[in-house]
Amino acid sequence: MAVSQTNFAWATLLAVRATGSAGAPNRRLHDRLAQALRTAIRDGRLPEGAAVPPSRALAEELGCSRWVVTEAYGQLTAEGYLSARVGSATRVAWSPRTAPPRPTAPRAPAPPPVRYDLAPGLPDLRAFPRRRWAEAVRAVTGSAVHYDLGLPDPAGHPELRGTLAQYLRRSRGADAHPGSVTVCAGVTDGLVRACRALRERGIADVAVEDPGWGRLRTAATSAGLRVHPVPVDGDGLRVGGLARTPARAVIVGAAHQFPTGAVLSPDRRAGLVRWAREVDGFVIEDDYDAEFRYDHHPVAVMQGMDPGRVFLLGSVSKTLSPALGLGWLLAPAALAPGLRAANPVAAAPPVLDQLALAAFIDRGWFDAHLRAARRRFRARRDLLVGTLAGELPQARVSGTAAGLHVLLHLPPGADPRATVRAAAAAGLRLSDLDDYRVAPSPDPALVLGYGNLTDPEIGPAVALLRDALR
Amino acid sequence: MAVSQTNFAWATLLAVRATGSAGAPNRRLHDRLAQALRTAIRDGRLPEGAAVPPSRALAEELGCSRWVVTEAYGQLTAEGYLSARVGSATRVAWSPRTAPPRPTAPRAPAPPPVRYDLAPGLPDLRAFPRRRWAEAVRAVTGSAVHYDLGLPDPAGHPELRGTLAQYLRRSRGADAHPGSVTVCAGVTDGLVRACRALRERGIADVAVEDPGWGRLRTAATSAGLRVHPVPVDGDGLRVGGLARTPARAVIVGAAHQFPTGAVLSPDRRAGLVRWAREVDGFVIEDDYDAEFRYDHHPVAVMQGMDPGRVFLLGSVSKTLSPALGLGWLLAPAALAPGLRAANPVAAAPPVLDQLALAAFIDRGWFDAHLRAARRRFRARRDLLVGTLAGELPQARVSGTAAGLHVLLHLPPGADPRATVRAAAAAGLRLSDLDDYRVAPSPDPALVLGYGNLTDPEIGPAVALLRDALR
Repeated sequence: MAVSQTNFAWATLLAVRATGSAGAPNRRLHDRLAQALRTAIRDGRLPEGAAVPPSRALAEELGCSRWVVTEAYGQLTAEGYLSARVGSATRVAWSPRTAPPRPTAPRAPAPPPVRYDLAPGLPDLRAFPRRRWAEAVRAVTGSAVHYDLGLPDPAGHPELRGTLAQYLRRSRGADAHPGSVTVCAGVTDGLVRACRALRERGIADVAVEDPGWGRLRTAATSAGLRVHPVPVDGDGLRVGGLARTPARAVIVGAAHQFPTGAVLSPDRRAGLVRWAREVDGFVIEDDYDAEFRYDHHPVAVMQGMDPGRVFLLGSVSKTLSPALGLGWLLAPAALAPGLRAANPVAAAPPVLDQLALAAFIDRGWFDAHLRAARRRFRARRDLLVGTLAGELPQARVSGTAAGLHVLLHLPPGADPRATVRAAAAAGLRLSDLDDYRVAPSPDPALVLGYGNLTDPEIGPAVALLRDALR
Repeated sequence: MAVSQTNFAWATLLAVRATGSAGAPNRRLHDRLAQALRTAIRDGRLPEGAAVPPSRALAEELGCSRWVVTEAYGQLTAEGYLSARVGSATRVAWSPRTAPPRPTAPRAPAPPPVRYDLAPGLPDLRAFPRRRWAEAVRAVTGSAVHYDLGLPDPAGHPELRGTLAQYLRRSRGADAHPGSVTVCAGVTDGLVRACRALRERGIADVAVEDPGWGRLRTAATSAGLRVHPVPVDGDGLRVGGLARTPARAVIVGAAHQFPTGAVLSPDRRAGLVRWAREVDGFVIEDDYDAEFRYDHHPVAVMQGMDPGRVFLLGSVSKTLSPALGLGWLLAPAALAPGLRAANPVAAAPPVLDQLALAAFIDRGWFDAHLRAARRRFRARRDLLVGTLAGELPQARVSGTAAGLHVLLHLPPGADPRATVRAAAAAGLRLSDLDDYRVAPSPDPALVLGYGNLTDPEIGPAVALLRDALR
């Protein structure tokens, strides 16, 4: 099989010129020629077995030196697209297969745009301290030693581990020292690591709160554990229900349960740690948004009550931004070696980000940000609760003591699913409590997040909610 | 049981004062009192059942308002450390267990300090473009939209995916489009994702190169695959050896095998893709340091030859720094949905870092950095190879065409393990090729990395190596 040299050179030339003009002016001619030939072979325009023109002939047609052509041919030979045998023409050595058609995602009809987002889970993204964060990154990028730019410590940079240990002792009452802190990408990442360490220890069953955050169940399952839902009431997890499961570990939001907003009662806190001791088990405390407590000082973490039995998970996702991908895990000392063994390829977040967070905390910027955020969120919560009371007197609000969301209990017989649908059609995003439940419940309720919402949006958002409830 | 009120107040006062002076001057007095009491209870100084002083009495002794004491007691009651019953004294409700002793790592004798590090795997950390990287972060931290600071796209930010697709097409000859790029934390993270997607597809066996990078084997194993070593020679992976394994997937360093430095020959490149088609399998191409090719233009990736069969893994760990934690994965379109399903909790790297890398590439800074690095590494490689030839004429060097390390073949009968030990004692870090081998081999060799070494260090380092070989 042979290729018309004129057609071939013409096509190649066009392609070389096009490549040259399309944003890569610096690339040398032989690279561009190689690229054009490669594309022609991949496209099937140059079929397998076809002889390419002798280098001298092609060089003449292209008006370039013969070296350009032999370089391009040599490159493609090294890549396996051409094959050159001594005393024979250089030939195409490759044939494309008909590529399987790319699966196209089924196109759902576009949902109406979201005007007011009351889905829980986000802090106030408008209040992210951009300038100070960039300044922290700039400072540590300049001051880091060369060694910091090498292979990172999988448990996290010692500087951030030290800063976090101090912060968690001071602000969350944790029993923390630099050696017990593992830096991770967030609560989910920390949970996967904790669950794998439990698995390594022979624990195969973990209890979770119902209702609860589905992603925690997914993370535990992906780490190889079986999950057992245990009900939650107004005082948090019903600790007594643990005995009815085979679980020797439990994931619990003690300071502010998601999504009910319940604070675990003092009796149950004590009972939970007693349970862990009795079954020789562990508690994984998800301290995801405890920095925001409005009616009282933040409750210290349970982890401090028994650091040998309680893991602590936290992150900056609810205080700064989930886009930063920075969190921490405090693990019982006995499980620290297993943590690493169970995750041989787990990596810490990028080192410069770790150092930036350490600088951000050490300079007092994190505390300043939290103080301002707490004030802002308290005022916004009061506005939301007040507006709900005025517009929807028949619905009760709970879970308001802390965090960035409240629970709105609907009158019996209300249909939260239909409400969410009707609200979405009007541009209001809501969450049905049922979406977080494992066991069905007759009590209809909505989860309303107010983190990522401006104060002036609350009035119109609640008005849309009232209309959707009709 | 009762506690001497005077002793108690004295101890508490001291603790409160100490807390107040130790870096937390802003904390309010009731917080500091609560902290002091909490610590006393945890330490066992206030045993379970002990009555704490009436709030009025303690306030008098401390010289503070009674409100301070009741706030502190209330806080500790909410946390379960105290219990208050109407008409009875407030008592300690908590007892510490004797904490299990913290496992202390066995202390190995400290190794002598490393003066010259020839271990492979690091780029030139001194040349990290600190100013431009910080500028890229600053720019995107200012310009990102609020939405970018919310929950990240698990597959990576669309902007970086677009930039990487363009870069990989232009610079590596890949078949890439934004939809086929997944941003990940590096080659190991990308490999775990690829292996899990294979597992999801029913592939349980993967072939790996021998010798090869142990971390790749660990990653594949941790993703649930069985690994099967296949030998490597001077032309790269012995593709014919695949048929003797049950593997339907293979991890291969085509452009520059680690650690031998071999470039996969054109015939084998073609043979490898044919094999994948025949067994209905997949190739995972580890393109870890292919940007540095000195004697020729970089060979285009195999992925472009059959994007439906070849995964491509890459990262900035060898070009910028492993501390950045940024990499990419190109996956066959048919496996793209499985990629997500197999990794339900996998997260992309921090969004601002992703946007910064996109800006760094788009501004031309990455190409400029690569050009300068390529010049620097080529000169350093020439210096190293020349120095080795002068000092160790009996040892042959190979794998010099690309990358950041070479292979030094020792004369038959040499003892590389003893050489590494002797070198370490003199402050020279080396790697024995045997450390990367699964099957034993009679050919002794050392792997010499020259990425993170200054030119003037090469002479003294090779002199130490010569001495260690004696």
